Amino acid sequence: MISKSQISFIKSLHQKKFRNEHHLFIAEGLKTVTEFVGSGYAVDTIFHTGTVIPKLVNLSHKIKLIEISPAELDKISTLNTPQGLLALVVVPPQPPLFPPDRSGGWTLVLDGIQDPGNLGTIIRTADWFGFTQIVCSEDTVEAYNPKVVQATMGSLAHITVQYTDLPRWLNNVEVPVYGTLLDGTSIYSTDFPGEGLLVLGNEGKGISAEVLRHVTRKITIPRFGKAESLNVSMAAGIICSEIMRGKSQ
Amino acid sequence: MISKSQISFIKSLHQKKFRNEHHLFIAEGLKTVTEFVGSGYAVDTIFHTGTVIPKLVNLSHKIKLIEISPAELDKISTLNTPQGLLALVVVPPQPPLFPPDRSGGWTLVLDGIQDPGNLGTIIRTADWFGFTQIVCSEDTVEAYNPKVVQATMGSLAHITVQYTDLPRWLNNVEVPVYGTLLDGTSIYSTDFPGEGLLVLGNEGKGISAEVLRHVTRKITIPRFGKAESLNVSMAAGIICSEIMRGKSQ
Repeated sequence: MISKSQISFIKSLHQKKFRNEHHLFIAEGLKTVTEFVGSGYAVDTIFHTGTVIPKLVNLSHKIKLIEISPAELDKISTLNTPQGLLALVVVPPQPPLFPPDRSGGWTLVLDGIQDPGNLGTIIRTADWFGFTQIVCSEDTVEAYNPKVVQATMGSLAHITVQYTDLPRWLNNVEVPVYGTLLDGTSIYSTDFPGEGLLVLGNEGKGISAEVLRHVTRKITIPRFGKAESLNVSMAAGIICSEIMRGKSQ
Repeated sequence: MISKSQISFIKSLHQKKFRNEHHLFIAEGLKTVTEFVGSGYAVDTIFHTGTVIPKLVNLSHKIKLIEISPAELDKISTLNTPQGLLALVVVPPQPPLFPPDRSGGWTLVLDGIQDPGNLGTIIRTADWFGFTQIVCSEDTVEAYNPKVVQATMGSLAHITVQYTDLPRWLNNVEVPVYGTLLDGTSIYSTDFPGEGLLVLGNEGKGISAEVLRHVTRKITIPRFGKAESLNVSMAAGIICSEIMRGKSQ
């Protein structure tokens, strides 16, 4: 059972403004909620229809469990086809941004990614390849947008996504900064070192001029056919694979 | 100006049943329509609002150009935000499926891909890497689905996508058949030959048992982090890159 005011509160969390105000975001689906429950994130409440709760393990007694009807879940869900449960998860305080000259590994840097599906896919793929940190420009789509959370398939629980004034932050960077550009060196003939930043730009406009000034190595994915471009999350995944392939041999 | 019966005819093409019946599909957006106009496809009609037509070059006089209002375009478009023009393109007759033992290069084989966005992204990415042929199981989503056409960003005009009874077709294959499986050999230690098939399976279930029997080389993308899986189009792109990297050096 869920009250009218709870319904309107949860529906408000579909919007960024209220997520920021209440420091809560929505996660749906057994896989995604399971990942948040088992992570450093605090899960506040799980609304469920009774069918999937037995599959959730390691549930802390601090998590409020509220059983609702499928019709009620329909009202609060962000999905066309709700998946039996919806969790409210606490937005963690942003940890201090690591000093960029001591990252100790590879970090993805996103400059103005707009599409939630792209950001979600980038987070999921970065998690597959063992990246644990993503730094975004302030105009990159918010990581707690429900479409982003959904597309990460739970990987958001494993990766720190931070937002900052990128050009200013990059001022202090001492590791190599790789940027994907049409006129760059082939990724196949690039030796990726043990640490660095990989910058990916906006879907339409690419890397902004202010950020481009900080790119020290321009790279490109060679084209063999006729497509005009690759999707940005695809480019991210292919380059992450290329960076890691050298570390696996 | 567009008649009511034209509107309902075009709206019928939003559905597979009527695309099959009339051998026509819908392409929208300047980039996508430009690619079909410049390809071997026959474009039958272009409905447009007058703003983007001057940007279309090499328009054959055989193409019917019909100016309509933005409100009329709204009615026939498959997009939430119509892009000024909508073309009706003729579904080409399916060419004979190449003999699988004489493919002369790499071919993607899709076994039960369901999501239109995934198929579209696979077509776009395959085009980037110079693949020109994709063979799909009969239960793979239709390539002329408007969401697929949109996601290919025009690359559908460059690639032959064919549907067949995969296990039967694979019976006659003599080139190596690579399949992506969790327990396969790392793609980073695989030497990809000059020709072969790359099989990708359904989003949830993977490669079907009937197709798996024909896979001669099991490969996998090594995981370095915690994500449970990669999106199938991402996996396709990463392996296409890995196949081509050896050919670029």
